[in-house]
Formats: sequence, structure tokens, C-alpha cells
Amino acid sequence: MQLFERGSARMTAEYGIQVGRWEQYAGTEGRLPFGAMWSVVPPGGRTTEDCHPEQELAVVVSGEGEVESVTTGDRRPVSGGIAALMDSSERHIWHNGSDEHPLVFLSIYWMPLPGAADAAAPDLAPRS
Amino acid sequence: MQLFERGSARMTAEYGIQVGRWEQYAGTEGRLPFGAMWSVVPPGGRTTEDCHPEQELAVVVSGEGEVESVTTGDRRPVSGGIAALMDSSERHIWHNGSDEHPLVFLSIYWMPLPGAADAAAPDLAPRS
Repeated sequence: MQLFERGSARMTAEYGIQVGRWEQYAGTEGRLPFGAMWSVVPPGGRTTEDCHPEQELAVVVSGEGEVESVTTGDRRPVSGGIAALMDSSERHIWHNGSDEHPLVFLSIYWMPLPGAADAAAPDLAPRS
Repeated sequence: MQLFERGSARMTAEYGIQVGRWEQYAGTEGRLPFGAMWSVVPPGGRTTEDCHPEQELAVVVSGEGEVESVTTGDRRPVSGGIAALMDSSERHIWHNGSDEHPLVFLSIYWMPLPGAADAAAPDLAPRS
């Protein structure tokens, strides 16, 4: 059993927020079928727009706010116990809805599986 | 973007607790490189001992309690923002430390990757 604690993770500034990449944890490389990082959006803050070829599942562990898909125009409230799945190349932003508490989530991400349907593919044509 | 909300998930009784398997969510099959389920340990409750060939990462999203490895004898406090990685075939139990609030975590699990070292392997010989 190995525990990973956001509170004691080494954090760096990325995407306009604080990020704790799991590469810092010994023994995870080659063992997890995904990459992972803690993400902390400060009170009143938001992430910069993010877009990457990996699919991403973000699991909210504390705080509250909104997750926005710039690609689809969808914007939904989130709090602990809600997970958001982003398609490959889906542009997205996280907004902290509190001026007092951080919004914290664990992002896990992986390259699309061979043959996996991409639910948002029709919306993902490059924008000119 | 697809959201998965524990509060509206269909839950069933398994392992002595309430479980919301992600197979209920359309579009996840063949898209996630892992299985997933919400787990809710009721106030004052605990899970039955669990043991399976999959490796498992459990991400605590609310409540507090303890996670116990029966295999190693390790027992550690957990709360939101802590994730626990269990090795393949590691026997484990979750304890809710509150008489008022549920302990909620998201379990994700996968078969060990080819060539992946199993950190706890020396402790995992069958007990006679």
C-alpha cells in the first residue's frame, strides 16, 4: 500500500495554478496505466485554457467551482464527488467558484486507446 | 466533456458498503484504461476485506477514516485529497472514522501492466 497526499506533494506553477505531478512518487512509473497530477486552483482563480492529445479524467476532491469545455461551450458546476472526462484535444478551463477555498482535483490522463470512439470527435475539427 | 456524479449514481450493496460501478455510464467502455466505481462507506462502517488481482488506486473525495492493508499490517488515516494505491492481491479494508458522515472514494483498477514491478510482491506469498 502506498499513499499519495496532496497536502505534502511538491507543487509547481503550471497552467496558472499549482500542480503536483505524480512523477515525483517513487514506484509509480510503469505501474500506472495513466499519468496523474494534483491540481489546485487558488481562491477566485482559474486555469489557463488547456488542450492536449491525452484523454483526461479529473476527480474533484475538495472545493467547488465550474469546469468549462471551450470546445463544446458546456460549463458545469463541480464539487467533491464529481469527475469530469475530457476528450482528446477538447479545450477546457477550470474555474474556482470560491474566494476563500482552493478547488482541488486529481487529473489522470492517457493516450486514447486503440479503437476507442471519441464521443466529441465531431466537435473537434481544428478551428480556423 | 462528460460528468460523473456520485450523488446521482445508481448504487448497489457490495463489500458491505454502497458501490456505484461505472459500467452504468454510457460511452466509458473501451475508452478508459481502467475500471472504476464509487464507494461509500456508511457512518461508523467498514468494508469487508477485499482482495483481487487488479491493482487499485482509491481517491478519497469526502469524509475521513482509515485504510488498512491486512497484507502488510499498515493502517493509515485518509481524508479528501489522499489516494491509496493497492498492489495486486493486497488484502485491504476501509474504515469510516465518523459516526455522522459517509466516507466516499473513487476506486479505479486495472490488471498489472506487463513487466510492472509489484512493490509489495515480497509480502504477497499466500498465507497458509
